[in-house]
Amino acid sequence: MDIKQYMETLGRQARAASRRLAQASSAEKNAALLAVATAIRREKAALVAANQEDLAAARAAGLEAALLDRLTLSEKGVDSMAEGVEQVAKLPDPVGEMTDIKYRPSGIQVGRMRVPLGVIGIIYEARPNVTADAAALCLKSGNAAILRGGSEAIRSNRAIAALVQEGLQAAGLPAECVQVIDTTDRAAVGELITLREFVDVIVPRGGKGLIARLLAESRVPMIQHLDGNCHVYLETEADPAKALKIVENAKTQRYGTCNTTESLLVDRAVAEKLLPAVARMLLSKEVEIRGCPETRAIVPEAKTATEEDYYTEYLAPIISVKVVSGIDEAIAHINQYSSHHTDAIVTDNHPKAMRFLREVDSSSVMINASTRFADGFEYGLGAEIGISTDKIHARGPVGLEGLTSQKWVVLGDGHVRG
Amino acid sequence: MDIKQYMETLGRQARAASRRLAQASSAEKNAALLAVATAIRREKAALVAANQEDLAAARAAGLEAALLDRLTLSEKGVDSMAEGVEQVAKLPDPVGEMTDIKYRPSGIQVGRMRVPLGVIGIIYEARPNVTADAAALCLKSGNAAILRGGSEAIRSNRAIAALVQEGLQAAGLPAECVQVIDTTDRAAVGELITLREFVDVIVPRGGKGLIARLLAESRVPMIQHLDGNCHVYLETEADPAKALKIVENAKTQRYGTCNTTESLLVDRAVAEKLLPAVARMLLSKEVEIRGCPETRAIVPEAKTATEEDYYTEYLAPIISVKVVSGIDEAIAHINQYSSHHTDAIVTDNHPKAMRFLREVDSSSVMINASTRFADGFEYGLGAEIGISTDKIHARGPVGLEGLTSQKWVVLGDGHVRG
Repeated sequence: MDIKQYMETLGRQARAASRRLAQASSAEKNAALLAVATAIRREKAALVAANQEDLAAARAAGLEAALLDRLTLSEKGVDSMAEGVEQVAKLPDPVGEMTDIKYRPSGIQVGRMRVPLGVIGIIYEARPNVTADAAALCLKSGNAAILRGGSEAIRSNRAIAALVQEGLQAAGLPAECVQVIDTTDRAAVGELITLREFVDVIVPRGGKGLIARLLAESRVPMIQHLDGNCHVYLETEADPAKALKIVENAKTQRYGTCNTTESLLVDRAVAEKLLPAVARMLLSKEVEIRGCPETRAIVPEAKTATEEDYYTEYLAPIISVKVVSGIDEAIAHINQYSSHHTDAIVTDNHPKAMRFLREVDSSSVMINASTRFADGFEYGLGAEIGISTDKIHARGPVGLEGLTSQKWVVLGDGHVRG
Repeated sequence: MDIKQYMETLGRQARAASRRLAQASSAEKNAALLAVATAIRREKAALVAANQEDLAAARAAGLEAALLDRLTLSEKGVDSMAEGVEQVAKLPDPVGEMTDIKYRPSGIQVGRMRVPLGVIGIIYEARPNVTADAAALCLKSGNAAILRGGSEAIRSNRAIAALVQEGLQAAGLPAECVQVIDTTDRAAVGELITLREFVDVIVPRGGKGLIARLLAESRVPMIQHLDGNCHVYLETEADPAKALKIVENAKTQRYGTCNTTESLLVDRAVAEKLLPAVARMLLSKEVEIRGCPETRAIVPEAKTATEEDYYTEYLAPIISVKVVSGIDEAIAHINQYSSHHTDAIVTDNHPKAMRFLREVDSSSVMINASTRFADGFEYGLGAEIGISTDKIHARGPVGLEGLTSQKWVVLGDGHVRG
């Protein structure tokens, strides 16, 4: 297979399909989504069987347990996948929404219309359920999708893609609205991220290695989903009960998610008051504490934190802790070390809470709430394609709206510029 | 000078200044803007003198008349520059605006806050007034700016930058909020567009050559200002008087602007009725008509249009004309040949007008109005840094809002995720 030619064909087909999809009514798109869900439920056994083949090959290749777990598609997983697609069908259609239509002194009316981006390339890990999720979100937002899942999931993804295309055609939409790259050749990614003519945006989901490669090579704009080195800052007026509850939830509810807190900042004035109880809670859950000298003076069990620790997203039962001199140092530390994903302050002081909200340069900034809330469902987006740590276009959880843009519309009645 | 090291210094300084600027109150930013305007007015003679040096060097280098014209800064030009800065001071501050704060079932309140992008790199032609405009827009939107104007304007830009920095310092803001790259070495651009750590977005203004270079080399996201191959489509129910007036304004009001119409589509059913009067008007203004065979049969004076003509932004008294079979062909033609800047339909038919509005994939789409309206001032943005032909982040005229993004804010009172 000539990969360059193959990818150009996919790109050209996606562009053509995107034109048709941009014109599709909400009813057509929803009919397609429901047909996809029905096909997925009907072919449950076949999907599980295809996934079993992927799993067997992955086991033979020595894939580690956590990755095998993500790769697995159980019967229950197939049901959730179908439910996810049905939920997207129920979300309001963002496309065509017109806002802020106002008369201007010249007599024209000017406003904006929400429109699809066009063709979206999504690069993700070996998680078959993402294939259905991503297809559903792109379809609902009127975008054609080119999907590239981790190569270990190729059989599962191929099987899911066939059902998505069946649903599209049942609703009278082109099958090419959703295409899965049907090769595990890594050169296909290189082509996808340079197909400027046919691809409008790349959504990469995956590890730092993937993002680093894309940053170096991509010629297409990206909505990046990078790491989450999230902070909780206990300010001098932090309520001790709220502080304990929020740190517990933010750090220990789940260790492997990007909105898990990885670093705790404690104001010097309250360190001796707050740290012992927080440390007891963390240690009781076998969370390793890596602290600055002042932390270690208060918490003898704490190990020494290095500079590198403060930059680290552990995704594990480890937390870095630093005693800071006040809100200025806290904000400066976060803006320096955070991955600009999600950071929270615990305080009952209004001016300090508002300063933190305004000055911390992260995609989500929180007052007296757990960083674990940073999530498309919790924010009411209905679904999310990822959490953007980029600053332009979309920040934080990206739902249907993040997969669209707004064009300007001008309504006149023969108006010309004076 | 070590260009790499110099640019990193500028970048580091800009990042530090941007942190301070993001916290600046509207009053501080406006005070700085007014101080800049005052300094510009005070130093009118010195600015004109610096510009005269640029002009003398440019003339000696044989720069063509149109470029010399853009490079020129007259006393009147200095006044307009100061006025422009004062106008930006009067615009509402977009930073800190919180919207859509809603309670979620979990009890948290979630919404968005508008925030600066951080550091913006602007690359533009040898037009000194852009230095003041761009500085003012970045400052008001809370962004630090690194400015790189055309090398022919280096003396003018240096003089303007000194006054901008004087104004910043008078208002207690860091001078490094606005920095002009003080070298004409082209390598500086190469460094600027790869300074991912310090530069959040690049706004290129300039010719296709610059954009092509940036597309190939930039590692920083861009808000591109590309060419304007704008269309007017006369539909079967186009009112003849409105059609004539709109084509006249869209094509002939100014030939060199990006929102000038370069291509006219006429529905076959009304071509014989509408084209003769439109052609007479164009020919009377010495606009060269390049048409398809059907156009030429109706307008004998028309030359033959090539495929390339339909892709061309003439920026000159030339127009391409094509007779089309209906709205489907018109939309398909525009989506193929347009630069996705601004396209207009002239029709009194509501369903067709709405189809055109929805299906034409351009940054501005108009009904019964001249493409010349595509402009930040006409749209009510107060000012513009450029017109984006990109699809992500900002489309069409980009004002203060386009230089900001929205982060998520979460307000809780000890809330944790269940």
